[in-house]
This record gives sequence, C-alpha cells and structure tokens, in this order.
Amino acid sequence: MNKFGRLFQISIFGESHGDGVGVLIDGVKPGIKLDAEDFSSDLLRRKSGGLGTTPRIEDDMPIISSGVFNGYTTGAPILISFKNKNAISKDYSGVLDTPRPGHADFTYSKKYKGFNDYRGGGASSGRLTLGLVSAGVVAKKMLKGISFDTRIINLNGEENQAKFNDILKATVASGDSVGGVVKIVAKGVEVGLGEPYFDSLESTISHLLFSVGGVKGVEFGIGFSGVGLKGSEFNDPIINEAGKTKTNNNGGINGGISNGNDIEIKVFVKPTPSISKPQESYSFNEGKLKELELKGRHDAAIILRSMVVLEASVAIALCDAALINRAYKD
Amino acid sequence: MNKFGRLFQISIFGESHGDGVGVLIDGVKPGIKLDAEDFSSDLLRRKSGGLGTTPRIEDDMPIISSGVFNGYTTGAPILISFKNKNAISKDYSGVLDTPRPGHADFTYSKKYKGFNDYRGGGASSGRLTLGLVSAGVVAKKMLKGISFDTRIINLNGEENQAKFNDILKATVASGDSVGGVVKIVAKGVEVGLGEPYFDSLESTISHLLFSVGGVKGVEFGIGFSGVGLKGSEFNDPIINEAGKTKTNNNGGINGGISNGNDIEIKVFVKPTPSISKPQESYSFNEGKLKELELKGRHDAAIILRSMVVLEASVAIALCDAALINRAYKD
Amino acid sequence: MNKFGRLFQISIFGESHGDGVGVLIDGVKPGIKLDAEDFSSDLLRRKSGGLGTTPRIEDDMPIISSGVFNGYTTGAPILISFKNKNAISKDYSGVLDTPRPGHADFTYSKKYKGFNDYRGGGASSGRLTLGLVSAGVVAKKMLKGISFDTRIINLNGEENQAKFNDILKATVASGDSVGGVVKIVAKGVEVGLGEPYFDSLESTISHLLFSVGGVKGVEFGIGFSGVGLKGSEFNDPIINEAGKTKTNNNGGINGGISNGNDIEIKVFVKPTPSISKPQESYSFNEGKLKELELKGRHDAAIILRSMVVLEASVAIALCDAALINRAYKD
Amino acid sequence: MNKFGRLFQISIFGESHGDGVGVLIDGVKPGIKLDAEDFSSDLLRRKSGGLGTTPRIEDDMPIISSGVFNGYTTGAPILISFKNKNAISKDYSGVLDTPRPGHADFTYSKKYKGFNDYRGGGASSGRLTLGLVSAGVVAKKMLKGISFDTRIINLNGEENQAKFNDILKATVASGDSVGGVVKIVAKGVEVGLGEPYFDSLESTISHLLFSVGGVKGVEFGIGFSGVGLKGSEFNDPIINEAGKTKTNNNGGINGGISNGNDIEIKVFVKPTPSISKPQESYSFNEGKLKELELKGRHDAAIILRSMVVLEASVAIALCDAALINRAYKD
Repeated sequence: MNKFGRLFQISIFGESHGDGVGVLIDGVKPGIKLDAEDFSSDLLRRKSGGLGTTPRIEDDMPIISSGVFNGYTTGAPILISFKNKNAISKDYSGVLDTPRPGHADFTYSKKYKGFNDYRGGGASSGRLTLGLVSAGVVAKKMLKGISFDTRIINLNGEENQAKFNDILKATVASGDSVGGVVKIVAKGVEVGLGEPYFDSLESTISHLLFSVGGVKGVEFGIGFSGVGLKGSEFNDPIINEAGKTKTNNNGGINGGISNGNDIEIKVFVKPTPSISKPQESYSFNEGKLKELELKGRHDAAIILRSMVVLEASVAIALCDAALINRAYKD
Repeated sequence: MNKFGRLFQISIFGESHGDGVGVLIDGVKPGIKLDAEDFSSDLLRRKSGGLGTTPRIEDDMPIISSGVFNGYTTGAPILISFKNKNAISKDYSGVLDTPRPGHADFTYSKKYKGFNDYRGGGASSGRLTLGLVSAGVVAKKMLKGISFDTRIINLNGEENQAKFNDILKATVASGDSVGGVVKIVAKGVEVGLGEPYFDSLESTISHLLFSVGGVKGVEFGIGFSGVGLKGSEFNDPIINEAGKTKTNNNGGINGGISNGNDIEIKVFVKPTPSISKPQESYSFNEGKLKELELKGRHDAAIILRSMVVLEASVAIALCDAALINRAYKD
Repeated sequence: MNKFGRLFQISIFGESHGDGVGVLIDGVKPGIKLDAEDFSSDLLRRKSGGLGTTPRIEDDMPIISSGVFNGYTTGAPILISFKNKNAISKDYSGVLDTPRPGHADFTYSKKYKGFNDYRGGGASSGRLTLGLVSAGVVAKKMLKGISFDTRIINLNGEENQAKFNDILKATVASGDSVGGVVKIVAKGVEVGLGEPYFDSLESTISHLLFSVGGVKGVEFGIGFSGVGLKGSEFNDPIINEAGKTKTNNNGGINGGISNGNDIEIKVFVKPTPSISKPQESYSFNEGKLKELELKGRHDAAIILRSMVVLEASVAIALCDAALINRAYKD
Repeated sequence: MNKFGRLFQISIFGESHGDGVGVLIDGVKPGIKLDAEDFSSDLLRRKSGGLGTTPRIEDDMPIISSGVFNGYTTGAPILISFKNKNAISKDYSGVLDTPRPGHADFTYSKKYKGFNDYRGGGASSGRLTLGLVSAGVVAKKMLKGISFDTRIINLNGEENQAKFNDILKATVASGDSVGGVVKIVAKGVEVGLGEPYFDSLESTISHLLFSVGGVKGVEFGIGFSGVGLKGSEFNDPIINEAGKTKTNNNGGINGGISNGNDIEIKVFVKPTPSISKPQESYSFNEGKLKELELKGRHDAAIILRSMVVLEASVAIALCDAALINRAYKD
C-alpha cells in the first residue's frame, strides 16, 4: 500500500497531470528547523533540464502545509505538495488503446479496471518521486552524522564516466533511451541498524528502492559481481575494535544489521520506457499488433534524475531503522 | 521486526542450538487440507546431506500444533515447529571473542549487548529458514495455478551446470565455500498482483528475499545484465490481448504490478561465511588481529539449500499480494 | 501513529490555525463516483452554527486533489483537504503558560518539547475531524447495503430529547459546557466482519472512536448498563437461520465477529473542555495556581458535532473489516 | 489479525482442546532476567479453582522455547507455550448444530465455513488468554516504575465487595453466571505516552482490551458516569509543575497522551455466556428453535479470571507506547 516505514512513515499521492503530487510524512521529531529552502538542493538534483532529461520543466516549489510552525517541525504530520503547472495532457490519450511497452499502462488499466488516470502515467508517473525526494530531505535531517555519495557507475554498459556525455547525445539523437547503475554509499552509519529477520536493513532498503519506477536490480556490497569469489575471499575480516573491516564485500551489513562500515548499494535503473523511436505494441481496440510512436516529452536517461530519488530512499529506510533501534536503547 | 505480510502473515522464531525453530502463520484460509506429509518434499530440498552441505542432519519433522483440525486448516493461526536434536554447541563458543568474518556474530553481539544466543549463530542461523520453507508450503497451497521453476544458474562464476559437481568437490576439499545465483521463475501468476507504490511486487518479494541469510543481490527479469540495452531493446512489446510480451526483460512486472507473464527473479547468494580454512579476524579480548579456524560443520555451498527457501519466499510474497488484490474485487 | 486501517487506510493532517486540514485515503476501489457534492450532507452535520456550537464558521469546501479522475475514483490515494480561513489566532497564546484544563495543551507541550503549534489546539484540534468525516463518506460508498442511525441519547445526564434545547440554552448562558452519549446503530452488516483476536470488530471500532477528541467511553450492545443481568438474561438467543437474535445485548458482535444483527455502539463524549467560565489552572511561568478565563469561540456541546464524526469512524472501521473479510473469500 | 503492537508485538495461537496455546512476543529488549518462575504469580491469578471458576484445572506451566538464553532475554522473539492436558472434548460437539447463545459458535462457523475447531470454543476460548497474561508479565518487566491496582468494583450490579461471595454462591447454585466491572489503575506512568491521532493511548489500550472475550465496555477516568457533569466540573485543573491534577476525570490521558496522573480504566465484562441452566437457541439441523442445556465445566463469573488478563492488556499497550515514545527521544 501507499505507506512505508514503521516509525518514520511516508505516504505519497498525486498524478502526473492532475492538481499536483506530494508526500505526507509522519514520525518526524519536533524541533527540526525546516523550510522550503532546505529542499532546493535535492530537488534541483532531481530536476530535468540537462542533456538526456525531459524538456518538461516544473517549478517544483514545495508547499509545506502542516507539521511545521515558526520554522520548526512540530512532531505532527508534515504535508508537502507540489503543483502541476506544465502538463500537456493531449500527448497521452493513445495509451488507452495501445499501451506503452515497459510501462504501467497495461497493468494499471487491468488492475484498476480502466478507471486509472492514464495521462502521463497518472499515479505511476516519475513525478511522484518528488514526494520521495522531499521525505529524503527530512530523513537526512533526522540522521545525524550520515553522509551520502551517490553516482552513476555505469551508463548503457559503459563504466568510463568521460564517455557518458557522448552516450547521452547519441541516445537523444536516435530518439532512444539508456539505463545504468547507480552506486550509493552511506557513510557514518552506526552499528546496529536493521531488525532481523523481516526488517533486515537490506530488506527495508530494497523495499523502498524497488518502489521507484525503473529499478530492476538491487545489490549490496560487491553483489552479483562477487559470484566468482570463494568464501575466504568474500568474507570481510574485522581489523579493529570498532568493527572496521579490511574489505567491504558485504556492503556494511551482516545478518541484516549495519556493521559500522560504509553501506554500499548498487541499483540497476532500466532505460526509460518512453522513447520517441517507433516501437511495436498491441492495439486492444483493433485486436492486433500496432506500431507505436510516442509524441510526449521524455527522459532519454531517467537514471540521471533517479540518483537523488534512490539516495532519498536509502535515507528514509535508514531513518526508520535508526528510530526503531533507538526505541530499544535505555 | 519479526513479521512479514499484510494479510498472509508470518513470524519466525527459535535458535540453532535452543529447543527448536518454527513459524507462526496467520491469514490462512479455512478448509485447506494440510498435514505433516505436505511439507516433506520441500523440507527434503532444504535438507543437508548431499555434496557441499553440512553433515549435521536433523530429522526436521514439522509439528503442527494449532490452526489445523481434522486435517484441514481452520482459519486460526498455524504454529509449525521443529525440534533441535543434533546440535553440538561446544563448537561455537569462540565467536564471543573472535567473530566469524561475514557472519552476524559482531553485529548481533553489539545490537543485543552480548545477550544474544551465540551458539551456532543462534537466532541468525540458517536453521530458521525451516519456518520460511514451511510457510512457503502453505502459501503454495493458497496460490492456485502457480508453479515454480527454481535452479542454480551460476556457481562460483561458472554457468555450466555439468561442472558444478567438480566445483563443489574442490571447494569441500579446500575447506572453502562458494556462492552463486539462483533463478526463480513463477508461472501462472495472474495480472494485477502488487500494490503501488510501496507494496510493489518487486518491493515485497525483494523484502522477503533479503531477509534470507546470504542474499546480497536481487534482480527482476534481465536485471543488471541488461545495462547495455537501449530502451527500444529493453521494452517488452505486448503481442496479444492477454498481455503476453515478446520478450520478458521486465520479469513479468510493470509499474510494480504483475503483467501475466512469468515472474523471473535472480538472487545472488554469497559464499557460506563459515569455512574450515583458517582466516583473519579480530580478538576483542586480546585487542588485536587473530587467525581464526572454525571447527564446526559447515555448508560449502549454502546456496544448494537456499533454493527452496528463496522459492518459498517468493511464494509467500505472491500469496500476500494475491489476498490483497482479491480484497478489492467485487 | 497517524494511520488507521489495514486495507482501507487513512492518515490525517493539518492544524486548527495553519493552512488547513485534510485526509489521505488509500485502498479505495476504482470506479466509485465521487465529487465534492458527496461530502456536503455529512460535512453539514459536522458544521457549527446551531445552538451550542462555536460561532466560528468555516466554508469547509473539500478539495479533492488526487485519486479521482473524470468523476470516478481511480484506485490511487485520495487527498482531500480543507483550507482554514476564519482562524483568529490571538485568542490562544496564553495556553503556553497556563494550559487549558482537560485539553491537550500540557501533554502536547511536554511530548513535543514546546514545538507543537499551540494555536487553537493545533494538531489536536477538533478541526482535524473534517478528515475523518470525509473518509467516512468514502467508506460509506464502499459499504454496500449498510445504513446508520446515529443520535444523542443522553445530554448532560438527561435522556429526554425534548429537554436538550433547554439544557443547551442554559449551558451557553452560563459559559459552561455539557457532554453526553451518542448511540450509533449500523444496520445491514453482513455476518463475518472482524478478525480475531487483535482485530476484533470491537477492537478496531473502539480504536478509531477513541482517537476522536472528547471520547472517554465506548460500549457495545447493552454495555455497562447490563452489569446487573445474569448470563441467562444477557445471552442473545438465535431465533432463525440467518442468526437473528431475540435480544441484542451483545450489540451484533460475538467473538469479535459481526453476527448479522445491528451493530449497536454507545459513545461517551465528555463536556467540551474549553469553557468561557473562569476556571482553575496552573501558571508554569509563575509557578503557581492561576485562574484562567478563555476568550475564544467554543462549542458548549461538542457532542452535537461529534455525532457524524463518530458515525464516520464506525463506517471506516467496518469498511476496512469488510475488505479484509473479502480477501479470504473465493 | 493476530498481531498487536508496533514495537512490542504479540501474536497468540492455539485452541482450547488442541495441543496447547501460547504467545510469540517480539520486540523484547535483551538482558531482561526471565524464567518460568516469573510467570507464576500472574498465572495463578488467572487460574481457576476458586468459587465461581471452572473446575477444569490445568497445570499451566509456561514453556519458554526461544528468545531466552542463560536466563536472560536475547532480543530475539520469545515463544511461550502451554500444553493442554485436561481437555474433555465430548462435552462440546452439540455446538455444531445448536450454537451457544452469546458465544462465538455461530460467527466462527459462518466466517470459517465450518472448518473451525469448535471444541470448547477452539481458538476463541478464554484459554488463549494465557498468552496475553504471559506477554503481560514480560511487558511489566520492560515498564520501569509502573505498578497496577486491579480490582472488581461491581459484580452483577452490586458494588459492595463484602457481598460478592454471596452473589457467586447463589449464581453457582442456580447454574447461571454473572458479569461485572473491573477497574485498573496504572500508577507511575510517565508523561508523553500515546501517539495522536490513531495510536492515542485510549485507542491502543481499548483495542487490546476489546480483544479479550466478554469485554463489552471500556471507559477512561470517570467515563459514562460523568455524563451529568458540566465542563467546569469535568475538567481536571493542573495543580503543580509536574502536571498533577486536582481531579482525574480524564483518567490520566489528555489528547490521547498520558499526563502523568494515574491511568484509570474501567472495563465491563459480561456474564459468562456458558451456563448450565437450560436456555433457548436454534437448531440449524432441524431448522427450528431448540432448548439448549450445556454439560461442560463453566466459569460462573469469568470476570474473576479476567482481571489479570485485562491488567496484562494494559501493560502490553503501555509497553508498546513507551517504546514508541522513546524512539523519538534524543
């Protein structure tokens, strides 16, 4: 359902071409300084505008309408919303008949019996990640001493960052799209976060990461690429009293609990499903295969804008885990 | 916490060297035929005994002590437990001082202030997966028309199944361990399972998979290996009215909702952290690095026994999703 | 926390003198006709204006900003909000020093370390019940064939409805307030709603009722007044195949599950704590007892406006129970 | 469902005439001394044997099979179970045809399609309260500085405790049963427990109390009997810096949050529905009214044994609230 978190709880809402989108955050400590300015930097990271992002530019001004008083959080639920201003709905009407491949058009239509708002992906639109980014900003304020290093380590199979620009240019030119791998490192995480069994830190972090559109793979530490290692190579030997390990193949988590080393996560974001290039699909009205050519504005590499969303997701999961862990302390 | 599921709920308990382990299952429909025999086949798949598995053999007879009456489920919570009989506890006392690398020894000891049952991994032991396997058996009975195909597609970097035996032999001989990749395919899943946003099917399935010890990566469909594909190659075109797609790079899930194609999942299971080979660790008593040589009985490839556990996890998540989906039907 | 419901989930937000208040509703079926008009009748029942209610009149126009498309629910979360327009904040500043007796001033200030929005009760204000009433309207639309009969059966100790008006007049004149008992009868509830043990129908209904400000007692069926009955008198004998009972002392619920008879609930709503009459309190600044005289606008009998809120609460709990019950049907 | 609590979580299981009953407790801090002896006193209070209680006497020896190691809690889930030894099942077979009035026989049979274990009430039996009492013992150990005073203040309409014995004698003699009111006072509760809105302290306490069989009314403070008071009389003026109030009509809770005064709760427990006296019911086989004469062993006043169960419920709810409250502290 539309709720994540046991103590730091978030619920998101809105549609791509409706009134707007937003997030309701519960479980925020009172006394945290918070105003619209605090969101600027992360919202900017999510914003479109650069090469490979959609030309649809929204103001994305967060409206905080509850839970903050005199500039400080009150402990009451915080509602943050964003108005939609720049939506062009006529682009999307065709999806009713011919679903966009790789998109939620077909599944939403089936699950919601055709009542879903199909315009621009409706409730499944990437625009709803504004809520996640906003909640991430609040989570980061709750997490003391934790910093994030988030970057793209692979774009369309290429690991050389210097070549990313060329890949994007060629992709935009061809009307196609590319995916890649985001690496998120959380530094300064205390020992003890995560609750075995079913709220293991990997479980809750991956839960939230996989709720972000386009995410199709999550791994911790060395992940799948460590498949060729023997146990004697994979194990991370502890080398000091604080639990610091020589290697970090386990990504800072053992037995579902943070071990004090960097939390390292890699996330595979698939190529944006919306492409300008003509592609095959199926016309449900005509009952036969049909070529589909999308006219809307698309991100050639949604991964560029996903980075801050994924980082926010990790922050939210860590914040919840930290609150739970604290509950049992004396 | 120790609970998974919104409507089909499971909680596990027990320790490796305590009285036993088990699972409490809630949300089971009344009228399902269920007896101890039903668990035999899946429990056997989890059992040790073959090459590369620990020589510790337990009877693993499930004791059903509530929720079943006259051979049928009653709708009340089902308690299934397993006695521990073959535990040799003296093997493990050293972990108090020198944590086993890659294990939960250090994190549990810190989180639980030294009060955790450290014997054989205690509550973090793979023995607790007996509960998951048992719950999986019940989940499979609730899921109509769904079948699973679960296999190891990569062992220690090798994808040729014919060579797996040689790898295992060499690994056992060297006192080391290996990991690999399990592929799970769920066939016959109806369209519509999964709840956006935060109970997307990928979210709930990965949540449970990452609660299984040793799991460090989860991907759906083609996953990370699809990083080099363009959108036009990655997208799965729909080819008929039922939503059947030409390719299945998205692994049967779009927008967090099952699309009627096979659900395809790949899971990376790291090499068993317990190895006989001497390895580095840190002595907390002596305050310095110390070589560690484990004497207990170990699985050279825990992945062999994980297969059925991971399959059970997917079944449990699907069962919960199916119940939720049904709730909103007329 | 700020969430009620397992499948029909509501979260409320806002403050008395902030931007506004509202509710986020998740788990609504797609295809339900819904527009602002649908809320008029129940919102009117909650509205002030009559004898014994506060002279603060708000427009209370519901703004539906997500989850509805072309006049029908989409299955996505529904955000309903109400703007605050008529707030006069200067009335309330004194509560920082001298808490209003019977109010949340003291507990909120302690729990939230003084950061809570104290104006007009802030997040603890009765104004947040607009969200409950709105969610109740949606819940009633989901519940087929259920009707409610809700009335005040006791006002300030008086059970003769003809005298209620005189009581109100005298109360307003004296600057005091009165409480009473609301009786809610839900007719047409199918057999089988409620999940033993911890989601018994009494548990979930009372849970939500006790979240409404001023509620200090909840009873089902004959309740406390049946204390003098013997078992042979209290038991409700079944008299036909449908489970109809001769008496309804159990209020339509046995073993936590609806039995097909009317659900009967009585709720004690205490006198509005805000009174104009001078009363004792404690000045935290001066560290001594201090007479308190409230200047704001108050309800002499908040119970008049609570009726529809309590009815909405019952509808919400029943709606959630009905969805859960349906999940397990074939 | 079968789960209560956000951080201190309990799930119960078992049947009256099956293998046994018990509770799984999660969220217990590590390092709490705990052995079977700790349960003796509260289990004894629940035990039958005195005047007005059933002659079925069970050993009620708690078996702790996980979560405790070397005499201390480990932080892992605690399973506590009790064997059934003294069950006589033949007494109950008739309920299949002719449900016992006031019991769950009819609703369970309908909800669970006849698959429920009907023997002795099966899963709806008061015997499952052994789990609640056990969890209450653990909760009390977690709650520091809180004590309980629990007593019957009304038996069958009589408030003079000296006459209770006569009432019980007469009731047993007539084969009938009586109910009453239990008052629970929790002393030493810190300010700040309870989370508005939907986890108000009244909400969570009542939720658990109403899950106990026979409970049909819950009130806080003066409750329904305060209906005749004016606001100026009902309000509890604060009289010192600690928040101590002159009166305690609100029962120690304002705005859903504990205010530091005694938490006062009154619970109405209906007369035991099982009586020896012949009573009316309906034969579903014969399709007509039928006189029912129960042969089993019954409590003439289940309230005598409920006291400790209700106290345990309050302790469990307070323990969960205290953990949550602590999570947000620095």
